[in-house]
Order: sequence, then C-alpha cells, then structure tokens
Amino acid sequence: MAEESVKLLGYWASPFALRVHWALKLKGILYEYIEEELPNKSTLLLRYNPVHKKIPVLVHNNKPLAESLLIIEYIDEVWKQNPLLPEDPYERAKARFWVKFFDEKCASEIMAAFSSKGKEQEKAAIARENLKTLESALQGKPFFGGETIGFLDIAVGWIGIWARIVEEIVDVNLIDAETMPLLTDWSKKFLEVPIIKAFIPPWDKLLEHNKGFHKILTVAST
Amino acid sequence: MAEESVKLLGYWASPFALRVHWALKLKGILYEYIEEELPNKSTLLLRYNPVHKKIPVLVHNNKPLAESLLIIEYIDEVWKQNPLLPEDPYERAKARFWVKFFDEKCASEIMAAFSSKGKEQEKAAIARENLKTLESALQGKPFFGGETIGFLDIAVGWIGIWARIVEEIVDVNLIDAETMPLLTDWSKKFLEVPIIKAFIPPWDKLLEHNKGFHKILTVAST
Repeated sequence: MAEESVKLLGYWASPFALRVHWALKLKGILYEYIEEELPNKSTLLLRYNPVHKKIPVLVHNNKPLAESLLIIEYIDEVWKQNPLLPEDPYERAKARFWVKFFDEKCASEIMAAFSSKGKEQEKAAIARENLKTLESALQGKPFFGGETIGFLDIAVGWIGIWARIVEEIVDVNLIDAETMPLLTDWSKKFLEVPIIKAFIPPWDKLLEHNKGFHKILTVAST
Repeated sequence: MAEESVKLLGYWASPFALRVHWALKLKGILYEYIEEELPNKSTLLLRYNPVHKKIPVLVHNNKPLAESLLIIEYIDEVWKQNPLLPEDPYERAKARFWVKFFDEKCASEIMAAFSSKGKEQEKAAIARENLKTLESALQGKPFFGGETIGFLDIAVGWIGIWARIVEEIVDVNLIDAETMPLLTDWSKKFLEVPIIKAFIPPWDKLLEHNKGFHKILTVAST
C-alpha cells in the first residue's frame, strides 16, 4: 500500500470535490491534492477527464476516474476499511437509490432555484418537497448510513452549507428546523464531525464566490 | 433458491423495463412479470415505488426496488452467475461511468430530439456527438462488456430500436453505419442474441405507440 499513488484533482468551492475529500479521509487514505485553477482547465484535467472536462478526478496508480459518486463507490471497493456502502445488496441498492434521488431531484432543483431568474420561489418549492422526501430515509437514525457516516451522508453532506448559500443569495427557503427537523439535526451533527468539518470552505469566501457565480449564471440566462 | 419470489412490474413499451427483462434472463432467473396498465397506475406500483411511481420495479422476496440501473446492479450482486459488471473495481467504475454518460448525455438528448418541437435537429446533433463519444468505449470489442454482454450493453441495448423509432417519427438522423460503424455493428449483433431478441416489442406496435406518445409530448410543450 505504501507505494500507491493517489491524487485528487479538485476545486476548493466544489461540493463534488468535497465529497471525495471526505470519502478519502474517512477511509484514512493518504493522497495528493491538486487544485484546479478554474475556469482555465489544466492539461492534466483535460487528459484525465476528456469526456466531461470536470473535477473531481481521482487518479489511482495513474488510472483516472471522474464523477464524484462513481469515485466514492470505487474507493469503497478498493479500500475495504470503514465501509461506506452497506454489505447487504438490498441496503446497498437503497443507498444508491437515495443518492440518485438526491442528485436528480434535490441538488438539481436547488441549482435551478439558484440559477432560474424569476422562478426562484417555484424551484425552491420543488426542492423543499423533494428534500422532505429525502428526509424520510433518515428514519430516526443518527446518520443516513445508520450509526456511522455512509455513502448517502457523503453524497448529501454539502447540503447544509450550500442550501444556506442559496437561501442567502436568492432569498428562498430550502431547509428549516420546523419543517425538516430530522434533516436539520442530521446536517448539524454531520458537519460537526471533525474529519468532515476540516474540509468545509470558509463561509465568507464561499458566499463571495457564489455571488459571483450567481451573477454569471443569471446574466447568461437573460 | 426454489422458494424465492421474484416479480417484475413493467410496461411492454418501456426500454427501462426491457433492461431488467434482459438482465434477469441473462442470469437465468425465473420471475413473474406483471404488466402495468399505464397511464392508470396500479395500487401495487404506488405501494412499491411511492417516490417515483414509475416502472420498472423489481420485487424480490417482497422487497421492492426501483430504477432500472440500480435493479441491474442489485441482480448482479445477489445472483453471482454470468456476471454483468466486471470484477475489477476500476473496470466496474468505467462501466458505471459509461452507463451514466449514456443515460445523461445520450438517452436524454434523444428524448429531447423526440419531444422538443422545432429543436429536433439541434438536439439530434448533440445526441449524435455524444453517441460518437460513447462508441469509443467499444474499442474493437464485440460487446461493451468484452466477449460477453455486460452492464453497459444492457443499459444501451435499446438504442438500436428506439433511435430508429425517433428517426422515423421526427425525421432526424441519430445513428448510421457510415459515421458510427462500431456502434451500428454492435447494435446489430446485440439485438440478434436470442435472449435479447425475444423481448423486443413488435416494430409496428411500438411505432404506433410512440407516435401517440409524441403527439402527447409535443401538444403539451406548445
């Protein structure tokens, strides 16, 4: 294991790169982090992810892999310690189901609320409804993964920060303690786990960055 | 194994249900097929897939699971014979990568070409470009899975039929032997495998059905 080479190409403000940082750290894997200077994509990124040209990319012994969720499944299959997906096939399938649901029905609607000028409230309402459905997967457990952090926790984990960013920038309501008490409690607990907390970008810097991003998105859509 | 109960809720014209039929048959699993009378969803479907309310749903020993690709991964994990995903974690990740690419970048753009009135040609051009990228994953192998049919073959398999349906109904070009010779050859070979061929819906009936579907979609979008 000592001779293994593990590199992560990421970007400090990307919630998708954050997922991979968390997975690697929870597994206790040593890795080299390479920060991309977006929007100018490096030749390394273009070589390692020619299809999507996006971070994150994991490079394990010179073999590149893109897409944060696929990277996490790969990490879990290669390094068996501290499993992230359940062992039971049905429980694994359920974890994958909710991860897919989150990306397709929650994250995408939050992004829509952030970027659809004039339709922010409408998109936020859809996001809230879907987040409420996601909340049902907690079912009184401390984490989505049960007693410990699992695949779904890592996939959803950034929501507690980015939802607040979107709420502040476009003045919508996404998650609150009254309507989503389980999700709120979970998020607070998750973000206080030291390994998780250590990678969260500074609030002011992230807010500023996303204000700029919001301007670009909404100018482009008008 | 004899006491196991395996049920599939599907719809005859659904390429996503077709994927699950193929996976079950390739594994040699006996199952009961339950045809949904869409658009009137059965109480069984609503009970088994309350989140999406969509077919296909696999019900294994009374435990329901939705989403065709997750169902196939589940099938591959529970029934080990005739593996559909590669054993090597990196090859598994690559298969998942292309499956995701197909669903998000090819299938969705073909659907867009089918349903976006006035933008059919534009969407078809994007679909063609992405299908060409997908073709690179064949790399001279007889199947995406190598010597035998794998996860990616099952996921992409319906393209050879539905692309022709879309080409006929909205008069676009999606796949042809000249620009995509590998994909064309693969599709022909795949659809001639007896287990695969046995489940393909009759062409005239499928065409008629999709003409009706196209009318509904394009009336709704105007």
